[in-house]
Amino acid sequence: MKQLSKSIRYAYWNTIKDINPLFVEAQYAVRGQVPSMAATIQEEINSGKKYPFDSITELNIGNPQTFGQKPITFNRSVLSSMLDPNILKYQSGDVQRRVKFYNDKIGFQVGAYSQSPGYPIIREAIANFIQKRDATKNKPSINDIILTDGASSGITLMFNLLLKDKNDGVMIPIPQYPLYSAVIAQCGAQQIPYYLVEDKNWSAEKQQLEEQYSKARRNGINPRILVCINPGNPTGQVFDKQSIAEMIKFAADKKITIFADEVYQENIYDSKKKFISFRKVANELNLDVEIYSFHSISKGITGECGLRGGYMEITSKIDSEVHFQIHKSKTIMLCSNTVGQLMTGLMVTPPTVEEGCTESTVQQYNDECKSLFTSLQRRAAVVTQYLNQTKGVSCQPIEGAMYAFPRIYLSDKYIQHAKKLGYEPDVLYCLDLLKETGLVVVPGSGFLQYPGTYHFRMTILILPEEKLLAKMKIFQQWHESYLSKFQ
Amino acid sequence: MKQLSKSIRYAYWNTIKDINPLFVEAQYAVRGQVPSMAATIQEEINSGKKYPFDSITELNIGNPQTFGQKPITFNRSVLSSMLDPNILKYQSGDVQRRVKFYNDKIGFQVGAYSQSPGYPIIREAIANFIQKRDATKNKPSINDIILTDGASSGITLMFNLLLKDKNDGVMIPIPQYPLYSAVIAQCGAQQIPYYLVEDKNWSAEKQQLEEQYSKARRNGINPRILVCINPGNPTGQVFDKQSIAEMIKFAADKKITIFADEVYQENIYDSKKKFISFRKVANELNLDVEIYSFHSISKGITGECGLRGGYMEITSKIDSEVHFQIHKSKTIMLCSNTVGQLMTGLMVTPPTVEEGCTESTVQQYNDECKSLFTSLQRRAAVVTQYLNQTKGVSCQPIEGAMYAFPRIYLSDKYIQHAKKLGYEPDVLYCLDLLKETGLVVVPGSGFLQYPGTYHFRMTILILPEEKLLAKMKIFQQWHESYLSKFQ
Repeated sequence: MKQLSKSIRYAYWNTIKDINPLFVEAQYAVRGQVPSMAATIQEEINSGKKYPFDSITELNIGNPQTFGQKPITFNRSVLSSMLDPNILKYQSGDVQRRVKFYNDKIGFQVGAYSQSPGYPIIREAIANFIQKRDATKNKPSINDIILTDGASSGITLMFNLLLKDKNDGVMIPIPQYPLYSAVIAQCGAQQIPYYLVEDKNWSAEKQQLEEQYSKARRNGINPRILVCINPGNPTGQVFDKQSIAEMIKFAADKKITIFADEVYQENIYDSKKKFISFRKVANELNLDVEIYSFHSISKGITGECGLRGGYMEITSKIDSEVHFQIHKSKTIMLCSNTVGQLMTGLMVTPPTVEEGCTESTVQQYNDECKSLFTSLQRRAAVVTQYLNQTKGVSCQPIEGAMYAFPRIYLSDKYIQHAKKLGYEPDVLYCLDLLKETGLVVVPGSGFLQYPGTYHFRMTILILPEEKLLAKMKIFQQWHESYLSKFQ
Repeated sequence: MKQLSKSIRYAYWNTIKDINPLFVEAQYAVRGQVPSMAATIQEEINSGKKYPFDSITELNIGNPQTFGQKPITFNRSVLSSMLDPNILKYQSGDVQRRVKFYNDKIGFQVGAYSQSPGYPIIREAIANFIQKRDATKNKPSINDIILTDGASSGITLMFNLLLKDKNDGVMIPIPQYPLYSAVIAQCGAQQIPYYLVEDKNWSAEKQQLEEQYSKARRNGINPRILVCINPGNPTGQVFDKQSIAEMIKFAADKKITIFADEVYQENIYDSKKKFISFRKVANELNLDVEIYSFHSISKGITGECGLRGGYMEITSKIDSEVHFQIHKSKTIMLCSNTVGQLMTGLMVTPPTVEEGCTESTVQQYNDECKSLFTSLQRRAAVVTQYLNQTKGVSCQPIEGAMYAFPRIYLSDKYIQHAKKLGYEPDVLYCLDLLKETGLVVVPGSGFLQYPGTYHFRMTILILPEEKLLAKMKIFQQWHESYLSKFQ
């Protein structure tokens, strides 16, 4: 039988050995081994097989609307009327005004390709948003703003454009979001890990950057890009101005390009912290440094993952020829989807009285945003609290983003047990958690972690909040009884 | 001044020499030199500068809605109600039924990430569409259908996944759609041109395939992929079953993977021709051949370029490990935009009485499709006729797609004149056509053409049809007087 299947396989002329090894190498744990098993289990449940739970709970991916998070009403009303002018008459005057505002510039052509970098009117809105957010005198040029299908496609484009050599290195925080390790692998470049210090709430330390930089240089690697994720994914920390300044000075000193992943800039729950952009700090330092910033409609309060919208901003002056190449490369894929572009415009342009909106429209918009934000804030607190109350688990405060990345303390006995079964210890842990509770979380090894430590990532997105509480209790009980067998 | 700007430029650490040369090399003429000048001219007109025309006419890109082509009402009504359930009550029962049909499966979560390959319910609809279209016993598995952001992103993914070596070659028709040459360049692989025979209405000849294959082999290039565009872009021919069978036999014999670009399958205007898919012919031949087929919502009757939807079908059995790698690679980018996915579902699932729709809904849908199609058919005929009535121009009949690719006969005197000015002759021709008439067309050199021949590509999309007539007259007069100076 093995023989047969083998012979069948080798009848094909594209086998695993014939295709791009860099793509084969790339991994993406967020939808990897554990979620795959989750899908299988859900199918088994649907076809009648019994498990100790009714359905799986997908805590592996930051996908708010799967838990019933409602999109912002105003945004959706504008979008739907852009797609179907026939229903415009049923919308409020405020929605009609905004639709007219967009259509006057776009020409009632949502179904047409836009300019490759995106609608000028949306890029203009983003430029205003950035200037206001950072309270800077200077305003970005719309030529430095490119709309993308989510942040991922912008990040992927820039890696592919800037990296050219197998010795090019990208400094990534550990733990990191797996898109980075995956795309670096696809580009055939080198990872240069810099470890965030968990005990200092996942801080980025200048000394660590310097050490890893020098080590890479000694190994013949040429550090080209420094990835900074703020607020942190999966780690949830929010960098203060000093940390950001240190990273910028480091990059300026070493002539490394910064990729500022700022997609969680709206998701800051610690009232003592606030979002400070790399652009703002670089402006104040007035250093010669190249920064690309990435933002998205998938997270924040907007939470419109499925619409695939976002933008990249060329935050600093760059070589005009490189600038041209960025635009040309974007052109080859024609344009980002126009619905995502419009949602990006809506994200950065709330309805206001200045615009002519009624108090009630503005009020409803603000109320929806506030209730969503405060709920996320409560959920972040609940998850942190439960995890830290759990024996053999510690979790840094979730200051921002949408995830907990708790450390789990696994006994040598457990580690041996896992190794014996041929699993990474955190992977076995997550697989058993899934099989016994239906909770889908991602092993820390998928995000990379400090050698000898074990973690997992879970979202804080479960709704309603009582359900989140219930699931955390289930986790707590499972964890303590599960590991008690391996004392 | 030169010195200064130079010194400024070299202050940046990412210069053109530091970035990926493969991306620098890639070209995309559809939005290249001529369209760039067109944008500049339009800006000048807007700011009061006088030209012999009021505005530019973008015939460079197949973007139907820019000319006021109306989207299909039913499709947009369903989409808008998916995005904004509040307006569902204003829609017809037929729209409400379809919305419920999707939402029951999707769970009112258009704003959430879908499964990476796309909504299962849409992939199921595509599988049914393909089986019905090809009238085959076997139906595609939904695991072999992956939804993409337009066809371009699927084609790009598969090139990146299958090509691994600088000696890997891709056989592309000449003339070709520039996405292919651009992505082959980005992948660092080799183009293997096979020339379509213009005098035989751009036929693909077995002998030409064999010759170019052998030549590539002699040059140490390993042909891996054969690109077949049917109906042709930019050339507009529709292949008959025999031509398709020859290409499939060639690929099977040489163990080359076929990429079947079938995005214009609905756009066939010659009543004697019909669309035959590579899948259908491969089924009948029952040969061991690997085929990937690509389709899109951007063209056809749907014409929703901006929404970026489409799918790729793995048309043949492939190695299971490669199959896994395709899905994994798609996963890294999470999913295609959900609005484009839904529009793809709508494209392949018209409203029917069987579904429960009223006669009038079905009638309206069919009427809209028919009037749009017959208009395209008339425009294809008008453009062909005018071009062939123009002195020094010949154009093969536009059997399908959305473009004319006329040959222009340029005198040696003109060619010398162009060379003296430092231009490719067809580029100078298109630049002067733009400056003097406002018509934006793409030089044939952007699509590659048989050495010593000159062409340009123009779309047939201008609406209303009288305007198209007027523009063709303008072209005719301009061309004859322009070239008369170079007899």
